[in-house]
Amino acid sequence: MREVFQQELAEVRERLVTIAELVAISIDHATQAFNNSDVSLAETVIADDHRIDEAAVNLDELAINILARQQPVARDLRVVVSALRISASLERMGDMSSHIAQLARYRFPDKVVPKGLRTTFSEMGRIDVEIANKLTELLRTEDVNLADEIRNQDDEIDDLHLSVFDKVLGETWKGGAVDTVDATLASRYHERFADHAVSIAKKVQYLATGDWVVPSVGAGN
Amino acid sequence: MREVFQQELAEVRERLVTIAELVAISIDHATQAFNNSDVSLAETVIADDHRIDEAAVNLDELAINILARQQPVARDLRVVVSALRISASLERMGDMSSHIAQLARYRFPDKVVPKGLRTTFSEMGRIDVEIANKLTELLRTEDVNLADEIRNQDDEIDDLHLSVFDKVLGETWKGGAVDTVDATLASRYHERFADHAVSIAKKVQYLATGDWVVPSVGAGN
Repeated sequence: MREVFQQELAEVRERLVTIAELVAISIDHATQAFNNSDVSLAETVIADDHRIDEAAVNLDELAINILARQQPVARDLRVVVSALRISASLERMGDMSSHIAQLARYRFPDKVVPKGLRTTFSEMGRIDVEIANKLTELLRTEDVNLADEIRNQDDEIDDLHLSVFDKVLGETWKGGAVDTVDATLASRYHERFADHAVSIAKKVQYLATGDWVVPSVGAGN
Repeated sequence: MREVFQQELAEVRERLVTIAELVAISIDHATQAFNNSDVSLAETVIADDHRIDEAAVNLDELAINILARQQPVARDLRVVVSALRISASLERMGDMSSHIAQLARYRFPDKVVPKGLRTTFSEMGRIDVEIANKLTELLRTEDVNLADEIRNQDDEIDDLHLSVFDKVLGETWKGGAVDTVDATLASRYHERFADHAVSIAKKVQYLATGDWVVPSVGAGN
């Protein structure tokens, strides 16, 4: 029984890694589509989002099944409950990625990235992709150093997010309303993507270090 | 044992209602602050958000404790797991409310609501408050008719959300970049608030009707 349970926990973790990998591919493609106005890549991202959603729902069902049949306690229980929360955050990361792709599709054939912000968004995209890859690795290895790295990169994203508003609200901003709306939404999606990663990283870190308190899903900005 | 368990489930439900009440007060005050540029009311909303966060964390701890001690199965297990997800969504609704209040505070003493959009935002605010009150009632009574009403009102919010973009991107829009940013973010926060309510309403509805599938937390836009 105990052995079966450990196999099931391993299965939960593998599935989380698989979903994180899908999210990493999704944000990589979404930010490429966004930065290069690649509408067909954007459509692939949007069409594939249901795979992340379905994988998350299936993982949730597995986790609830484990709770029902194995009735875990103590740390094991925390691991299963955390898996439910992590899958919810991964699913939201997929949504953010899809939203970024949608912006690229809406504005096509126009460039979606407002002038004067190309470097900033290219940088935000690069960091979000790195964060997603580190998150996958963190879920695979539980190497908590990666959690710290993700937090540091989230700080960089927050700085870039603020710099977008500085630019858009500055006197030199020449963009029209469309550019302003796009920059505002795109920056928010990039920033929320990183926030969810931090939220997951905290949960993995708490589990790995044995801290009993699991932060709530939506903590943070 | 069974009786204790039923008492504990009742306690979980009462606490969800209490958090929903806090959220309803928060969105009522936030939208008032936003529409009337009431900075002191905005500050109250922002300062009180931690109460919602703490109540959600405490509820989560209770739910995890119940899982560990009572080891519920079948529908009882679904109820406890759903409570965890509902508390996460309520916590996010509090965040959205706080974000709306922050917009009011940032722009003070300027009016935060862009000209030409006052009626729209006043309507969005009114509907978000109604949704929050209905959600509280739904959690209290499990009257699934309320879930349908919440969904219908969310459709109204979605229409208003789209109308904000139509206005901001239309030829008659006279607002500057600040107004455009504010309208974009404010509209998104109002819309997300309602989305979370729908997500909760679906969970309550599924539980009440005995459907086994629990939709994932972040489902929706």
